[in-house]
Amino acid sequence: MARLRLGLTMSLDGYVAGPHQSTDNPLGEGGGGLHDWAFAVRSFRAPHGLRGGETGIDDDVLAESLENVGATVMGRNMFGGGPGPWSEDPPWRGWWGDDPPFHTPVFVLTHHPREPLEMEGGTIFHFVTDGIEAALERAADAAGGKDVTLGGGAEAARQYLAAGLIDDMEVHVVPVLLGSGERLFDLPAGWQDSYERTRLVASPAAAHFRYRRIG
Amino acid sequence: MARLRLGLTMSLDGYVAGPHQSTDNPLGEGGGGLHDWAFAVRSFRAPHGLRGGETGIDDDVLAESLENVGATVMGRNMFGGGPGPWSEDPPWRGWWGDDPPFHTPVFVLTHHPREPLEMEGGTIFHFVTDGIEAALERAADAAGGKDVTLGGGAEAARQYLAAGLIDDMEVHVVPVLLGSGERLFDLPAGWQDSYERTRLVASPAAAHFRYRRIG
Repeated sequence: MARLRLGLTMSLDGYVAGPHQSTDNPLGEGGGGLHDWAFAVRSFRAPHGLRGGETGIDDDVLAESLENVGATVMGRNMFGGGPGPWSEDPPWRGWWGDDPPFHTPVFVLTHHPREPLEMEGGTIFHFVTDGIEAALERAADAAGGKDVTLGGGAEAARQYLAAGLIDDMEVHVVPVLLGSGERLFDLPAGWQDSYERTRLVASPAAAHFRYRRIG
Repeated sequence: MARLRLGLTMSLDGYVAGPHQSTDNPLGEGGGGLHDWAFAVRSFRAPHGLRGGETGIDDDVLAESLENVGATVMGRNMFGGGPGPWSEDPPWRGWWGDDPPFHTPVFVLTHHPREPLEMEGGTIFHFVTDGIEAALERAADAAGGKDVTLGGGAEAARQYLAAGLIDDMEVHVVPVLLGSGERLFDLPAGWQDSYERTRLVASPAAAHFRYRRIG
């Protein structure tokens, strides 16, 4: 079975997105600054077709998180297009333009069926309506022996953590304070007993806390 | 007016103490591991009369937090002795033995009056029943031109943060996962607008996030 890896950026006060997320403001109010550490580094910029970027700890950590990934799972909220049935006019195709940075099959958790959506560059969005375990199984099959990465958002991450399905977790804590929003660690107590720390490294922009599942 | 400085250690999942705090288990279940980073370093050990200890980033950060402190404020829960009126049989004298590591006047927030308690080594516990601002004023007077430090616990920290009274805040995030307990950042939204980051440094044991008040 493919390993399921989670990587998320969190504000010091515990939020992975600000309040009032919307199509115009997908990371919520104030949430735009969360990912500055990633936007700045070379291994983020290259898959988005951008040149240059910083090297160092943040780049090393991000590059590692992108290695050996054969498929992606994400929540409906991360894929976007608002809640409820899919609009046809125009159809929502994600936030990432014609050539999304995944370059793998992506399995989107949703309550609303939709035909697969093939993008440029190897990204195909599949829409999974039968739950998080089914999405993981399909992603694992599609990963071709590589790992599956859980892209987010907060709700999907909480569901997979609560179900004990995350094998490797890295939380990138940034010195941003959001005050409110989507909390990552709002989980039933006990989930954490299955995890042990494997690494803490930091730059002046982010502290990267990594864990692996032992249970 | 003396500056009020806050330093607290927090688990990655946001707790400054585990669940079910008690006299036998003052940091709650699982909370004992929170402070390992501090117990290991020289600048923590020396004021407790212990020899040796690690040097490096964690030691530098802790030493800095102990510099120029003229008085301490703490919540009743941190001072201990259980909730409610003070017991006389035997009187609770804190967790720290006859020579507590503060060596300054300490102002304990409580609803229950009590005479000052003079310990060895310059620590005097004063019990303040008229609120957080009164405690800060008395501590500032006693500090003799130095800073006041807020020792904790979570409830006292939240009250001072919500009231905008903390001038300098450092949160030491450790790779511990507690799953439940006393959350630090459970505050009315908006408090964070008055703070800007000043520093992030880390060792493999803790990431130290520092802020100052700008509002």
